[in-house]
This record gives sequence, structure tokens and C-alpha cells, in this order.
Amino acid sequence: MNENKYPFVNNSHDPRFLALRSLQTHQGRFRTGLYVIEGIRHLARAVEHNAAIESVFVDPSVLSNLFGRKLAQRLRKRGIPGIRLSHELYRELTLATEPQGIGAILRQKWFCLDDIRVERNSLWLAVESMESPGNLGTMIRTAEAAGASGIFILSPDCDPHDPATVRATMGSLFSQKLVKCLQDEFIAWARSNRVTTVASSPAGLMEYKALRYRFPAVLVIGSEKSGLSDQLLETVDFVVRIHMHGECDSINAAVASGVLLFEMASQRVIESL
Amino acid sequence: MNENKYPFVNNSHDPRFLALRSLQTHQGRFRTGLYVIEGIRHLARAVEHNAAIESVFVDPSVLSNLFGRKLAQRLRKRGIPGIRLSHELYRELTLATEPQGIGAILRQKWFCLDDIRVERNSLWLAVESMESPGNLGTMIRTAEAAGASGIFILSPDCDPHDPATVRATMGSLFSQKLVKCLQDEFIAWARSNRVTTVASSPAGLMEYKALRYRFPAVLVIGSEKSGLSDQLLETVDFVVRIHMHGECDSINAAVASGVLLFEMASQRVIESL
Repeated sequence: MNENKYPFVNNSHDPRFLALRSLQTHQGRFRTGLYVIEGIRHLARAVEHNAAIESVFVDPSVLSNLFGRKLAQRLRKRGIPGIRLSHELYRELTLATEPQGIGAILRQKWFCLDDIRVERNSLWLAVESMESPGNLGTMIRTAEAAGASGIFILSPDCDPHDPATVRATMGSLFSQKLVKCLQDEFIAWARSNRVTTVASSPAGLMEYKALRYRFPAVLVIGSEKSGLSDQLLETVDFVVRIHMHGECDSINAAVASGVLLFEMASQRVIESL
Repeated sequence: MNENKYPFVNNSHDPRFLALRSLQTHQGRFRTGLYVIEGIRHLARAVEHNAAIESVFVDPSVLSNLFGRKLAQRLRKRGIPGIRLSHELYRELTLATEPQGIGAILRQKWFCLDDIRVERNSLWLAVESMESPGNLGTMIRTAEAAGASGIFILSPDCDPHDPATVRATMGSLFSQKLVKCLQDEFIAWARSNRVTTVASSPAGLMEYKALRYRFPAVLVIGSEKSGLSDQLLETVDFVVRIHMHGECDSINAAVASGVLLFEMASQRVIESL
């Protein structure tokens, strides 16, 4: 196996392992601007999208998939540094129940508001806050599937590079432009670029299907528990609601964003015909 | 505190604690026909729906919420047996990061196909299989919100009473009729009751929004990884697809069922006007 040539690490005090482990924490990611991805699918998509791969880690005892082994080999040939981890150390890093034995450290890629070119017909997602990292990841995956161009992250606590978020994106992180900004900056940007801001709330006066969305548009999503803050609810252009049957007062935040984004996406197709 | 009168259990070998713990396993639930719910919201909804509450367990050191304490008191007055658990033992049972200190053992409620009365305009969900208990629970919650009447469970491995599933339903389990049956029985039932069966697959020839759904209708969902089995795909009335943008080949199964169920629900409203 060619990835054998990477140095072997089986000591949990090895600084290379400690560096990997520190990226499991928000602080570690914030301090370094790095994050960890894991699994063949994620790594393959990172390569496709020319994501900035800093280093690779493999567990040769598990990496049996031929495509995965070739991927490791290709990255090594491109001069990307790496380590081989003992099975025990790799286990400490992975969230997968059946890990594939390959992962990488990547540099985070953030865009500034000024860098964002707004296509006439584009669709965006903005997340004010999100308690569950898995929900955030599912939203990012859903946003790509609905044809969104990028995600605005409006809270410093909301971390798209959390390992559970990255895992739930299923590789969609690389195709989406990520923008971190303050709420005020976001609203000012949307106004100056004539981007329609749409939020969802049980208090919305209009059913989400009744609105004819004007594009470019951005769907603004609040936290699972408390929804969008009053500050944002009062500044967005439209507040729609998803009618709930039964005694439900809400649906899962990722499901809600899927229902809304796919409705917006389908109207966009009709509009552009 | 009135729930103080329940006997106190702090020994992990106590049969009452062991009974609770055994219900965390599929085997334990299958053998007894019981399951566990936890949290004030779930318990309150169980009471509203006259669910069969066998016993109650509380952690008095945590149960500070007034409504939760009154609920415990009410159930005790109704003669429902219960125990007080030590904080450590309660911790072992809960999935919540901030447990509310109240839970209950309930009797599972299953319907037979023959018991199901099909309303003319009704909407149903059928789940062939689901790897993630959380996804299954989110689907059940979404089904209630979309106005579904019940859920068909087509695989013995798919357990709506798994604690992670119950937790994700947010209490929607009690309002939905649960039916466990074989695929063949399900298809035969749908045909004889003129219930339209709809599945979703990337191979579907029609976009999900293009179909005019006829009601009663049932959405049939397959597993996250492999989708619906060929057997079901070949027997359902319609196979629709959700168009994916970008390089996405799929979205989360719970999000997909939300997108589809809410589209069906909205057409049902229009149809019934």
C-alpha cells in the first residue's frame, strides 16, 4: 500500500494527533482557520472542488476501498503531507460507525460580503443560529440540492465546520459560498443588492406557497427552539408560514428549510422559462 | 413535592430500573410491547391522547418545572404507579442534554390493516426501512404536521418506539395511527382501498410537483442509503423524482419526505376546496 509511506503515529501525545484532535473543538478551528473532513466521499468532493487540503490522515487497517486508497496515493504524489494513524487513534477522531479510514485537514474558505456577486436569479440561505450541528449540515446539503449559491452565517456560534455539521453536509460544503457576517451587514447587503429576504414564522401572514418569490432571494432561518429573532423578523421583506396540521406547532428546522427552499427553487424554474 | 410519595430507587440492580433500561433495546420493547417516553412535552401529549401509561419515573432533583410537577402529581392521583430515580440512574436513561426529570413507560399501540378506515381525502406515510432512528422520528413529526393520518411500518427492523425516534417525533407519535404489516399486505390493502401509492426515486420520470396526486394517497419512503427496494418501486402507482441541483445525488430522507408530504398536502387542500 502506497500510503504506507506516510509516517505512522500511534502515540496519543504526538503533536500531529493532538493537532487533529484540537480541530474537533470550536476553539481549535477558530484559532487555526482549519477543519477536518472524513470519509472517501467528502475527500473526493474536496479534491474536485480544489479545496485547500493541508494534510491527510489514514487508518491503513481500515482503508480497504480501492478508490479511497488511490485517492490517498494521488494526494501523497501531489506532495500533500500526511500521517498513518493507529486504529485506536483514528477511532477517537471519527463520528462514523463504520469509518472508511481516510480523512483530511482543510483550510476554511470564507467569502466577504463584498466578494459576493449576485446572479439575477440566484437563491441563498442565511442561518441566524442553529443549536444542532447535524441540522445545520443537513440544511447546507439541502441548499445545494435546491440550487442555492451560498450560505450566510449570521452568528459566531454557528459553525459549519463542526465535525457533525461537515458529516451531515455529505460534501455539499465545498460547492457553497460561505459568508460570515453580522445581521446588520447582511440586511444592508441584501438591500443594496436588491436581494429579497424571506423568513418563516408561525406568525407569518401568508402561506409559503401563496407568495410569488422575486429573485435573487435569500431564505433566512432561525434556531430550532426560538425561531428567528424579532430583530430579523422585523427587517426581512416577507414572513411566510408553513401551515401545521394536527397539534404540531413546528417541524424540524432542516425539514422546514427543505420545504421552503424547494418551493422557492421550483418557482425560480418557472420564472426563468 | 407530591411525587415524593413514589418509592425511591437508587440501586442499578433494582428490577424496576432494570425494566426501564431493558426498554432501551429493541428486544426489550418487542418482548414486552412497551416503550419509554421522556420529557414534559411528550408526557403531556400522551395524556391528551389517552395513551396507555403503565408507569411514571421522575428525577425529583431535576423536575423543577411547575407544569411537569403537576403532571406527575395528577398521574399519581389517577393511580398510575411510579418510581423516583436517583439523578445518576435517571441520567442513564435519558437522551436529553438537559433532562426535565420526568418520563413514563407506555404500552405500544398498533393498528391492524383491517382496522384502518380510509377517509376519502386522507394522506398516509409508509416507511419501508430507515437506518437512522432520528430520521424516522423526524418523519413521523413531519407527517403529523402535513396532516397525515398514520404511518405504515413495512419492516420489522424499523422501530418507531426506539428512544431516539420517540424523541425526534416531539410527541407526534400519539396522534398517528401506526400499522405494522408486510409489503405485500400493504400493497394489497392500498389497492383494495383505492389508495394511490407514491414513491420517490432519482429514476422517477415525473418531477414531484408535476403530478396531480389523487387522494387518498400514501407516500412510500425507502432507506437513506439504498432508497426503496425494487419490489416496491415496481408495485407503486407513481414514482416521482425531486430534481437535484449541483452535484447532489440525494437529500436527507426526512427532508425529502417533508418536501413531498407538504406538496401532497397543499394539493389536497386545493382539491378539497
